[in-house]
Amino acid sequence: MEVKNRLLNFDDMVIYQNDDWFCFSLDSVLLANFVTVGLRDKMVMDMACGNAPIPMLLSKRTRAKIYGVELQKEIFDLAVKSVKENGLEEQVCLINKSVNDVYLEMESDLFDVITCNPPYFRVDENSNVNDNMIKRIARHEVMLSLEDVIVASRKLLKNGGKLALVHRPDRFMEILMLLKKYNLEPKRVQFVYPKRDAESNILLIEAVKNGKAGLKVLPPLVVHNDDGSYSDVVRKMYGGDVDVANEL
Amino acid sequence: MEVKNRLLNFDDMVIYQNDDWFCFSLDSVLLANFVTVGLRDKMVMDMACGNAPIPMLLSKRTRAKIYGVELQKEIFDLAVKSVKENGLEEQVCLINKSVNDVYLEMESDLFDVITCNPPYFRVDENSNVNDNMIKRIARHEVMLSLEDVIVASRKLLKNGGKLALVHRPDRFMEILMLLKKYNLEPKRVQFVYPKRDAESNILLIEAVKNGKAGLKVLPPLVVHNDDGSYSDVVRKMYGGDVDVANEL
Repeated sequence: MEVKNRLLNFDDMVIYQNDDWFCFSLDSVLLANFVTVGLRDKMVMDMACGNAPIPMLLSKRTRAKIYGVELQKEIFDLAVKSVKENGLEEQVCLINKSVNDVYLEMESDLFDVITCNPPYFRVDENSNVNDNMIKRIARHEVMLSLEDVIVASRKLLKNGGKLALVHRPDRFMEILMLLKKYNLEPKRVQFVYPKRDAESNILLIEAVKNGKAGLKVLPPLVVHNDDGSYSDVVRKMYGGDVDVANEL
Repeated sequence: MEVKNRLLNFDDMVIYQNDDWFCFSLDSVLLANFVTVGLRDKMVMDMACGNAPIPMLLSKRTRAKIYGVELQKEIFDLAVKSVKENGLEEQVCLINKSVNDVYLEMESDLFDVITCNPPYFRVDENSNVNDNMIKRIARHEVMLSLEDVIVASRKLLKNGGKLALVHRPDRFMEILMLLKKYNLEPKRVQFVYPKRDAESNILLIEAVKNGKAGLKVLPPLVVHNDDGSYSDVVRKMYGGDVDVANEL
């Protein structure tokens, strides 16, 4: 297979990606901005990290050690390359394993924060057999289900630790039920709308391990202005670089 | 007690209310606009209808028979007066009973649509012993809990019938859990934000009795413009009468 690795300039970082597999997307940028992470946090994990946009973006918000877990070797290699290129090898530790293996092997109660931009689609859903396998695993719950992510987070998070997810609103009920089932209490949710008069197509949610009940619904995040250009809030996330934002 | 009944012009209707008890609020207007109601619907109920703003507003959207249930005699009397003043006695039938009695006495599977703007506060919550009793019953779950509303709706709705609620986002999880528990499947939700950069303070939700899973998150509804004036969408609901909107 010909590998078309592309060097992408984002904010002041350089990220390698392969457009045949998937692009480091708005979802990752939204999640990296949404999650509550602070200077006191020591251990952060991004599950199913892809080419590691979230670990790299989080490196600007925290001094914690950031673990990125990615099963697929080809994507993992791009992540390693990007982390090295940006001199983040000390802070970002990449693990070429499945989240389910990490769940079994790691001790419990280790992490302050876990993020995940998981495969969105059920295996029976929007299945396209023509998709290449790398793309398929990244997008469909072939190797990693939503419940896997939540079960692993429940174990790996400290008491009071946070799990932040980006997902699709049509699976909102299921996400809430699973979080509740595993005592991860939903505390903050933000709906993302492509335009101000459109239905939400992206959902950001943060839950606290053994947290008290009480959900806040954050201000709406609207991605595009009425004229189709990116909204100020999205431009700001992309470091003001409109061309990059338009490319993604 | 001196009763200060005030005649309020709204759109082209006249509504009696007493400001010492509670005002017919934005919440009712939002719910009356949000609920899915059509020409084919035959039977509609508004539970805990207060001075009947929702039944009266719904009379413009459907030819169905609309039942308004209100326990408190003083408020019920205002509702009767308003319905008469607007010549809606044939379409709107007011019942001076508690929802829990109506639940016991009425047959099941009667209604196409049920709406409710229930008491928002738990009895232990924001309790102000200085509140007068009429206001207290309208605002706190003294006589009617959220679960009462959902249990009654489950019985009274036809299969496929719709329950639409307006409530506070901090009780969102509880609402979803209770709807699920009684097989009322959440299908549409809309978050209302006082301003575009503020957290949501009102939640609109519609569930279908024995419906299939699949929740849509409707576009954000922002009440005020940045300068504090009412947004166009809210003005439209108030029939373009900005003065009335500002008064409420």
